Amino acid sequence: MQAHTFFLYLLIILLSARLFAELAVRLKSPSVIGELFAGIVIGPSLFGWIEPVEALKLMAEIGIILLLFEVGLSTDIKRLIRSGRKSTIVAIVGFIAPLLFGFSIAFWLFELSLLVSLFIGGTLTATSIGITVRVLTDLKINNSHQGQIVLGAAVLDDILGVMLLALLYEFSIGGGVNWVNAAKVLVFVSAFFVLAPMLAKVMSMVIKRFHANSEIPGLIPTTIVSLVLFFAWLAHVVGAPELLGGFAAGLALSRRFFLPLGVTLRKDESFAKAIEQEMQPIISLFTPIFFVVVGLSINLRAIDWSSPQVWIFSFVLLAAAIVGKLIGSFFIRENLASKIMIGMSMVPRGEVGLIFAELGRFSGIFNNEIHAGMVIVIVLTTIIPPFTMKYFYKRYSHLLVEAK
Amino acid sequence: MQAHTFFLYLLIILLSARLFAELAVRLKSPSVIGELFAGIVIGPSLFGWIEPVEALKLMAEIGIILLLFEVGLSTDIKRLIRSGRKSTIVAIVGFIAPLLFGFSIAFWLFELSLLVSLFIGGTLTATSIGITVRVLTDLKINNSHQGQIVLGAAVLDDILGVMLLALLYEFSIGGGVNWVNAAKVLVFVSAFFVLAPMLAKVMSMVIKRFHANSEIPGLIPTTIVSLVLFFAWLAHVVGAPELLGGFAAGLALSRRFFLPLGVTLRKDESFAKAIEQEMQPIISLFTPIFFVVVGLSINLRAIDWSSPQVWIFSFVLLAAAIVGKLIGSFFIRENLASKIMIGMSMVPRGEVGLIFAELGRFSGIFNNEIHAGMVIVIVLTTIIPPFTMKYFYKRYSHLLVEAK
Repeated sequence: MQAHTFFLYLLIILLSARLFAELAVRLKSPSVIGELFAGIVIGPSLFGWIEPVEALKLMAEIGIILLLFEVGLSTDIKRLIRSGRKSTIVAIVGFIAPLLFGFSIAFWLFELSLLVSLFIGGTLTATSIGITVRVLTDLKINNSHQGQIVLGAAVLDDILGVMLLALLYEFSIGGGVNWVNAAKVLVFVSAFFVLAPMLAKVMSMVIKRFHANSEIPGLIPTTIVSLVLFFAWLAHVVGAPELLGGFAAGLALSRRFFLPLGVTLRKDESFAKAIEQEMQPIISLFTPIFFVVVGLSINLRAIDWSSPQVWIFSFVLLAAAIVGKLIGSFFIRENLASKIMIGMSMVPRGEVGLIFAELGRFSGIFNNEIHAGMVIVIVLTTIIPPFTMKYFYKRYSHLLVEAK
Repeated sequence: MQAHTFFLYLLIILLSARLFAELAVRLKSPSVIGELFAGIVIGPSLFGWIEPVEALKLMAEIGIILLLFEVGLSTDIKRLIRSGRKSTIVAIVGFIAPLLFGFSIAFWLFELSLLVSLFIGGTLTATSIGITVRVLTDLKINNSHQGQIVLGAAVLDDILGVMLLALLYEFSIGGGVNWVNAAKVLVFVSAFFVLAPMLAKVMSMVIKRFHANSEIPGLIPTTIVSLVLFFAWLAHVVGAPELLGGFAAGLALSRRFFLPLGVTLRKDESFAKAIEQEMQPIISLFTPIFFVVVGLSINLRAIDWSSPQVWIFSFVLLAAAIVGKLIGSFFIRENLASKIMIGMSMVPRGEVGLIFAELGRFSGIFNNEIHAGMVIVIVLTTIIPPFTMKYFYKRYSHLLVEAK
């Protein structure tokens, strides 16, 4: 690909993302909706101007990792741990229920094969942490008690989703599942989550020392981005989703990070501030690329809209996808409005769901109709909840509690 | 290419660039030398860890364009125009002399064919504006009178180099040269250089208006990067080197920009400051990628070091390359030390030279030995001058005049 064509692609992506985000905000919607819509407009669904070429996809990946880094940066690890029990319940119920509902509907109602039904269930499991946190941040409720539960649950859900994907993938190619491997991954991921923030913290202190001594400007952008990329890579190596590496790095560099066992670190507010200030423009540049590329990878034209099968299939599964996530929050002790707010926030599928659907089509497990149906479900779970989340969070804003 | 491998590549590039840049500065050399060296170390010349894959090359291209944007941002257009006559002389003599010397040596001394000799001469013509300005900035003399002459001459040289490349390319594939096309390109490029900054200025005022009204953060990074990409693309469309589009955009957004014909714009210092502040981390992130990728694309192992032919060929041409650029400054009225400083600053070849050599090899015009020899010449002209520039600029710092 020639550089000037790439420049043109990138500038169309950045400008359309901005334009539709501004429009979305003026229509009282979260800006992320505008960015997804921009991808649909400039992509194969409508104008077909931009193909999601490899370099764009890689920059989009950097975008989602940096977004999770930013989320980590503004997360208070104490609060996250405090909401841990509730998050775990919401995550596990919200993972099992859609899997079970999706599988049952596909297997018994539509009489599809075991493997196809398992893949359909799997596609419905993972909450899109990227979209969920963007909406929470857009609505400025990411630090509320409810927001923290959602954040913790979304992180867990992402891990569970990727593990299920690995299991189903093994199952689809080999016919069997290696439970020892699966358990190993779980141990690695857990260890990663405990150790990564501490390692990142130590590394950031090395960077801080260099920062005080370096004569060349631009230390923070290059080293902090390297740190984030390193943990994304490390997450992949231990079998966790890459974006969780970004989250772990962000947690460690947040102003509210603490080491366990009472080890105290000298806080340096000015360094933390410098990081936030210098990383902000980089994050703002890369993040929209991700959401536009998600929109680009949806092709609404590939769906046979005239087939009633597709519609029935999609809407039954959509109901399963929404109800499956909503009930997760009914297993925790909160008032009704909070339960609905939390449950609704867990509904958006997105990147992991799309990866499931893509793998299903790629490996021949999904035929075109099923694939189209699944894409419709993912698109609707991604597009509807921001509106309803916004409605509920505004309507019941008096019930939002600042997290302790 | 998988995302996690790309993350690893990128982080190795960023960290090695930083490490070797810090080392270079501690050894009293410009940091850009460290970045080039980092590319040589991690690339095929030594460890071979990193391949310059497409996505990296594209990010490197963004880096060089953003660097030229930054240069434009800190350029005072009045000063640039004031040094215009001297710059033009330095550029034209420093373009014709290496072309003539290189061609003559190849054609008469080494008895190579007409086309090969023309390509060898062409490879020696273009000053690497990227490396030159980085060294000037590293030494903090980019705003001196001498620095301004070099900057203007390097910009002109880049345009001349790319035009010659287009001519020779046509000549090599078609056997003839279309002078009408060549003249057309010259007109387009000149028009671009007069009109682009004005257009960019108008666009920046639109961005400024949005900036005052937008509720979503991150407007400056996305829109200013888009603006820079747009002018890089536009430069390509009219036949100019892309990086000059970045320079034009930077000029327009600089605090010292003025419109011709006495049209005055209301200055907004705070907006200009916000642009500088928010663009700085992005520029610092992308720029090292460019210089490391230049280092990556040099393969010192591909050179047959045992062949005396290669050495003689290279060193004769290296002398021609250095003398050819040095004499350009002897046609302007300056004291001797300034002449040497200016001439020496024009010596670094780099991206355009490498593109010439690559095209020569690719199209079968250069055999392996000639290609290797040309690469040696480019590498040495790139690596030696920063040291000598630094020496001369320090030794004769009392002769440096702040540009009026």
